[in-house]
Amino acid sequence: MGCGSIVGKKESEGPLGALFDEVTEDVRMGSDSFEKGESAMQKRAVELALASAGRSAGELDLIAGGDLLNQCIGTAFGIGAFGVPFLGLYGACSTMAESLMLASMLVDGGYAETAAAVTSSHFCAAERQFRFPLEYGGQRSQNAQWTVTGSGSVLVTSGAGKPYALVREVCPGRILDYEITDSSNMGAAMAPAAADTLARYLRDTGRRPEDFDLIVTGDLGAVGGDLLRQLMEREGLPLGDNYNDCGMMIYDRERQDVHAGGSGCGCSATVLCAAILPQLRAGTLSEVLFLPTGALMSTTSSQQGEPILGISHLLHLSSPRGEGENA
Amino acid sequence: MGCGSIVGKKESEGPLGALFDEVTEDVRMGSDSFEKGESAMQKRAVELALASAGRSAGELDLIAGGDLLNQCIGTAFGIGAFGVPFLGLYGACSTMAESLMLASMLVDGGYAETAAAVTSSHFCAAERQFRFPLEYGGQRSQNAQWTVTGSGSVLVTSGAGKPYALVREVCPGRILDYEITDSSNMGAAMAPAAADTLARYLRDTGRRPEDFDLIVTGDLGAVGGDLLRQLMEREGLPLGDNYNDCGMMIYDRERQDVHAGGSGCGCSATVLCAAILPQLRAGTLSEVLFLPTGALMSTTSSQQGEPILGISHLLHLSSPRGEGENA
Repeated sequence: MGCGSIVGKKESEGPLGALFDEVTEDVRMGSDSFEKGESAMQKRAVELALASAGRSAGELDLIAGGDLLNQCIGTAFGIGAFGVPFLGLYGACSTMAESLMLASMLVDGGYAETAAAVTSSHFCAAERQFRFPLEYGGQRSQNAQWTVTGSGSVLVTSGAGKPYALVREVCPGRILDYEITDSSNMGAAMAPAAADTLARYLRDTGRRPEDFDLIVTGDLGAVGGDLLRQLMEREGLPLGDNYNDCGMMIYDRERQDVHAGGSGCGCSATVLCAAILPQLRAGTLSEVLFLPTGALMSTTSSQQGEPILGISHLLHLSSPRGEGENA
Repeated sequence: MGCGSIVGKKESEGPLGALFDEVTEDVRMGSDSFEKGESAMQKRAVELALASAGRSAGELDLIAGGDLLNQCIGTAFGIGAFGVPFLGLYGACSTMAESLMLASMLVDGGYAETAAAVTSSHFCAAERQFRFPLEYGGQRSQNAQWTVTGSGSVLVTSGAGKPYALVREVCPGRILDYEITDSSNMGAAMAPAAADTLARYLRDTGRRPEDFDLIVTGDLGAVGGDLLRQLMEREGLPLGDNYNDCGMMIYDRERQDVHAGGSGCGCSATVLCAAILPQLRAGTLSEVLFLPTGALMSTTSSQQGEPILGISHLLHLSSPRGEGENA
């Protein structure tokens, strides 16, 4: 297993700034648009993941990935040049879990030997697609979140190598509708999906939240994170100090004006690659539940008065330290 | 394995009209928008696939699917109500192959026992998202295709049951860029991807085009189909009378004013479910290569001058007749 991350300037100024593999000051990455900049970041994240494992693109059997842009063009134009078989995914901000889950199953099942999971998001590209042109300078509500500019990629390999982590179990999510229609309150729309997947996983495996060093959601932020705690309390599976959210980790909310925290596919992807997988490799984390959430909606569905649906996919990751096997 | 299809009025008036499971005269399916109509069709297609195999939604371990609408809302709002773990996909018009390929691998690998693959497209929803509002009445060029209104779903099961077909092999596609920028000429953008996947598959397996009763693409149409023949000729693997395209099968081009043929995720999905799988079950077809193609682009990427990328995923399907095993 290998991993790579690249982020923008704002993310590099947050608490995890020193941990990302690369930082770009140019949100267009030398191209002439934000969207092409996002594609270039995805390409770079895959290159970094390959390099971290001493692999080349020619060794890849499969890339699984997606992003938030209409028709997932960030990914198609980003990784097309590798010439590797590709599975396009749309899981909104849960895409890092969906892609990693699929890559892990396909490698574990023997359908591929080496597969890359990748996703990204881009503040400027997302704002103009989902909300307003940046030039409009719209006010943002306090429960709104800030889309992370960045991309993360994880390389999944079978057999030998120095692994970052072992994928122990996966639990794909169901679509939940809590009739939230406020598109600046994604956390509330997604929290029930995280609670559903987490409770189903814990009940299926007979485990408790305290069995893990870290239970980490993707971008529930301050509002959604509090709701998840309340929902898990009601389920009789209360979360303790071992619960965190990538959207709360990536920015300094006091200092960086991000309101309820970070969001976007790139949020959980870059935090996983920069701050979680390296700790699993080092053994400072042993057992982690990683469960990003996605808000399934479009500007069309919102304009038609439809609610924001939530989904959350879960992976159980273990440290390879003290284990005989590599995955 | 089971399958189900539902189409609109125009599709029911084509050469395959009598073969679809259901026809709706109401493109909104009783809702107040085209998009919700598309969602309702996806839900119905999954219900029909379940019914064809005598299964209920509660027996589904997984649904894999997607569509052409921004953020794949057709699928999210269509199948969310089943409460089944969901993998969202974006493969443009190749989505029926991508979803069926994934469902087959996950069932074959033991990660699920029963999985549904589903996709859809909708002429009215696609036109206003990708081209013009219907009311505008724009002229369509002769190489343009007509987006199929309909949805198809395939149920993949392991072990016992009366199968429609056996999934023998799959070959995921690579993203190809032939620098086509004319968004009314999707066939030309996608044909090289079909040729790439088909040639890779035939070389890998040591087979020839003439080893199959039917080699069928998804929606290359008249222009793309001719280009595929030329490209395969150059590869030394010429296609004979056993080549066809779902986009050429679903409409009567003389009579139905569809120019270069049908297109959209729903094109290959409904033709597969209505005309190909039943023939495999009956034994009138024995060996089939099903390889829909997808055009990876958005209105944003086109407005930015980017080319239309192509991808094609392939499945080798066999008739269960005369075989000891079921899949």
